[in-house]
Amino acid sequence: RIKASGLKLRFCTNETQSTRGKFVEKLQRLGFNISVNEVTAPAPAACRILKERNLRPHLLVHDDLVPEFDQLDKANPNCVVIGDAADNFSYKNLNEAFRVLIGLENPILISLGRGCYYKETDGLKLDVGVYMKALEYACDVQAEVVGKPAKMFFQSALAEMEVEPQQAIMIGDDIVNDVGGAQQCGMRALQVRTGKYRSV
Amino acid sequence: RIKASGLKLRFCTNETQSTRGKFVEKLQRLGFNISVNEVTAPAPAACRILKERNLRPHLLVHDDLVPEFDQLDKANPNCVVIGDAADNFSYKNLNEAFRVLIGLENPILISLGRGCYYKETDGLKLDVGVYMKALEYACDVQAEVVGKPAKMFFQSALAEMEVEPQQAIMIGDDIVNDVGGAQQCGMRALQVRTGKYRSV
Repeated sequence: RIKASGLKLRFCTNETQSTRGKFVEKLQRLGFNISVNEVTAPAPAACRILKERNLRPHLLVHDDLVPEFDQLDKANPNCVVIGDAADNFSYKNLNEAFRVLIGLENPILISLGRGCYYKETDGLKLDVGVYMKALEYACDVQAEVVGKPAKMFFQSALAEMEVEPQQAIMIGDDIVNDVGGAQQCGMRALQVRTGKYRSV
Repeated sequence: RIKASGLKLRFCTNETQSTRGKFVEKLQRLGFNISVNEVTAPAPAACRILKERNLRPHLLVHDDLVPEFDQLDKANPNCVVIGDAADNFSYKNLNEAFRVLIGLENPILISLGRGCYYKETDGLKLDVGVYMKALEYACDVQAEVVGKPAKMFFQSALAEMEVEPQQAIMIGDDIVNDVGGAQQCGMRALQVRTGKYRSV
């Protein structure tokens, strides 16, 4: 209906366990008419930042997310990018990311989110934010967070649509990541009472 | 020589990858005349605290350290104890510790140290403090740290020897963990220029 009205539309997701392609397939199966270009997600946003700043990432992400970084030079890394790597968060892999970071003269840590945990059918799972904190403490650095509720993330979606913040409205179920983040960068926001919403 | 002089002696170690027994064997091979009763280490110190407070730990520690907790009831845990678990710091194990902690009405996290990393022959390795920070962030709790430089740790060694702080001197190579920690609880301290000492 939003599409039919002629309004510009972007799906903003913090999904970092798979590519936008997979994400779009899932939404299409649920009946949404949506294409990859209409999705703003942390990984492609990070890619833009990495290119702009000539950064070559060491990746600690989910296997299914790796293709989003295909176009980037990853030899001789000068930063670390972490996403929700799930089982890839082994002691071995975290040590490797740590060694790259601690070995840099100017350590840069980019995190595809700051979430603590999420729920899956088999229980609660630790999210990327927890491992971001671990590396921040180990290397005495502050991570740059890409994804909701970061201002930069919403601004990048607005820029793609060529729309000013005050012309846009964010619709989401998360009071902090969706509503709070959008308001912080001058957008209006609407909280829906579906998804993770719980009345207090 | 200290022994021959009749002075009381305690070896204070932050070792949490193995039992005091193994630690003593290693020192004996190096020519030290030392017994298990002369060693103050985080795991037995934690055991005393757990018993005093009727705590039943969920353990996230190195396999070799588990025997130190043999005497404790571990069914239906009401706290989490983490040590330098090394390869046991898998995503699966960290999730399990997290779920125990987040499920407690009054979450108690006891950490056998706050170190960031240490050096092994094959490179730098992340230490327990990093994973402590991760769980602190995930559950919004503050860990209780057992081990150097915690005051409680030195006090427990002093109590075992029945000695007042001002009667004791701490000798160590670490300016923060050994010298700083001892001074904080009223002891004098001597820094040796061996081990990890580096002149600036």
